[in-house]
Amino acid sequence: MTKVVDLLTKARQGHVGALARLLSIVENEDAGAAEIVNATHANTGNAHIIGITGPPGAGKSSLVSVLVAAYRASYPRVAVVAVDPSSPFTGGAILGDRIRMRDRFLDEGVFIRSVANRGHSGGLGRAARRIVNVLDAMGFDIILVETVGVGQEEVEVVRVVDTVCLVTIPGAGDDIQAIKSGIMEIADVLVVNKADRPGADRAVKDFTQMLTLGAPRLDWKIPVVKTSSAANTGISELIVEIAKHRAWAIESGDAKRRVLEANRNEVEALLRERVLRQLAAQLGDGRFDETVARVANREIDPYGAVDLLLGSKLDKSPAVGVSAGT
Amino acid sequence: MTKVVDLLTKARQGHVGALARLLSIVENEDAGAAEIVNATHANTGNAHIIGITGPPGAGKSSLVSVLVAAYRASYPRVAVVAVDPSSPFTGGAILGDRIRMRDRFLDEGVFIRSVANRGHSGGLGRAARRIVNVLDAMGFDIILVETVGVGQEEVEVVRVVDTVCLVTIPGAGDDIQAIKSGIMEIADVLVVNKADRPGADRAVKDFTQMLTLGAPRLDWKIPVVKTSSAANTGISELIVEIAKHRAWAIESGDAKRRVLEANRNEVEALLRERVLRQLAAQLGDGRFDETVARVANREIDPYGAVDLLLGSKLDKSPAVGVSAGT
Repeated sequence: MTKVVDLLTKARQGHVGALARLLSIVENEDAGAAEIVNATHANTGNAHIIGITGPPGAGKSSLVSVLVAAYRASYPRVAVVAVDPSSPFTGGAILGDRIRMRDRFLDEGVFIRSVANRGHSGGLGRAARRIVNVLDAMGFDIILVETVGVGQEEVEVVRVVDTVCLVTIPGAGDDIQAIKSGIMEIADVLVVNKADRPGADRAVKDFTQMLTLGAPRLDWKIPVVKTSSAANTGISELIVEIAKHRAWAIESGDAKRRVLEANRNEVEALLRERVLRQLAAQLGDGRFDETVARVANREIDPYGAVDLLLGSKLDKSPAVGVSAGT
Repeated sequence: MTKVVDLLTKARQGHVGALARLLSIVENEDAGAAEIVNATHANTGNAHIIGITGPPGAGKSSLVSVLVAAYRASYPRVAVVAVDPSSPFTGGAILGDRIRMRDRFLDEGVFIRSVANRGHSGGLGRAARRIVNVLDAMGFDIILVETVGVGQEEVEVVRVVDTVCLVTIPGAGDDIQAIKSGIMEIADVLVVNKADRPGADRAVKDFTQMLTLGAPRLDWKIPVVKTSSAANTGISELIVEIAKHRAWAIESGDAKRRVLEANRNEVEALLRERVLRQLAAQLGDGRFDETVARVANREIDPYGAVDLLLGSKLDKSPAVGVSAGT
């Protein structure tokens, strides 16, 4: 196996295979993940991380393709992280999109990565964030994080990007009411995509009105932008609004708050994993399994099982649970 | 506040309000949850817990209504637990369904409960399972667990019920391919609903063929049943297949395995929560926040933060992390 330090060197030189390997290691928290994070963390914070979310059918993939092309006109390196929290039943849809997108960009300045739902312990949001951090440290200027839908998992995924674009389409009248409550929470920029379709102006008007009614979030006024990937219109306006949001976020301290939140999530997750791993090692599978079997036989209840496990554990080994270093 | 012991007494006497309150306490792990679990755990294991899952539009709610009516002909008490892991954006849909269903059953033998996505620490599956256990202990004979879609969360929710019915509809041709991989994993009974529509026989044939091709799971052969909630056909056949699965599961030990898995999940979750709560109390918010801030400032990386937090913790208090009892 190639050493992590070699992978880091190669990835810094632009070797795509080495980068992909690094991302897999941090995504899956394989051996070497700590070394990669340790080597890259100090160099994060330079990329602009842009989330693209919205209901299925809103044309997110096409919009991302057009945005990537537009960003590439100004930035040497752009990455797309496509997150698919869909069920085992619908898996694969995004992969097809990705392959189409990859075909479109025979461009060495564009890197595309999928993150599927493979039971990441800390959730997809955390896996995506770890990937984004490595890409950031490797010098990607713009990182687009695209999600498939707008479910709870997607909200988690985009919560900690720098700028969240919520993509909708004209004529989604009933949807407006439905997404109302969620919009205020996560959107920084509202996009009415497929604006070549009838009803685009109406949709913009409806959204604008809706946003006026809601309580403004801090002092950022969510803009509504009309785009059409097909006609390639509105893209530069969207890029301007995204840049304005970034400027505001840095100015207002909101950017710092999001970085803090992302780091808090990560430290919490690692702390939790480490302590639980040590606990599991100390309890031993035998004792745990035996206690669970007693619960299944209804001799004791689950809370009683925890008392038993932690109680006996304390008797056996008073200096417990956590130790310095790894 | 009414004491838990009083709520338990009232709920056992059939008081619906007391039962609802008990369920809320265990769902949210409020104070009293341990007492309720302790008082009910030994009496679980009598209900037949049936999961109803499938893609949106498959007619699950109507099917559940018809099934409830059919089960009520033989059993005094039937419960429906409706699980909605949908996003904040689409929330509310299932509530409407529930209200319609409730109107339909002005029947004291039917109890309906919704579980929404409110950020349960252990996930929706665990919250649903805790609710099901209390209903089971309270003497409900049949408990139907209905999910909105077939995403990963739904799979988690239905994984530990006794019998999983996967509901599809005719003409979902393309879907068949898409859901292929997932079916084998979780379905115990396959339902072709809306069988009054054209293509039902074709769908049954396709599914049957597909199931023949797949590796059989243990020695249970997944049956394919045609139903129509509208025409009220196929319901007794479905009930027969569900009962056959139950009989097989008990005979083969599969039922015991699922109970063991559910209990293992619950004990693990409680153990994790207890240990982490104690860890958090010992670290103190100040130290944790301060360390996260250093990570956000890129002075240290997240793994280094964990080393710092656990290292200093060990120095301060050697007898750590866990203690007997609550």
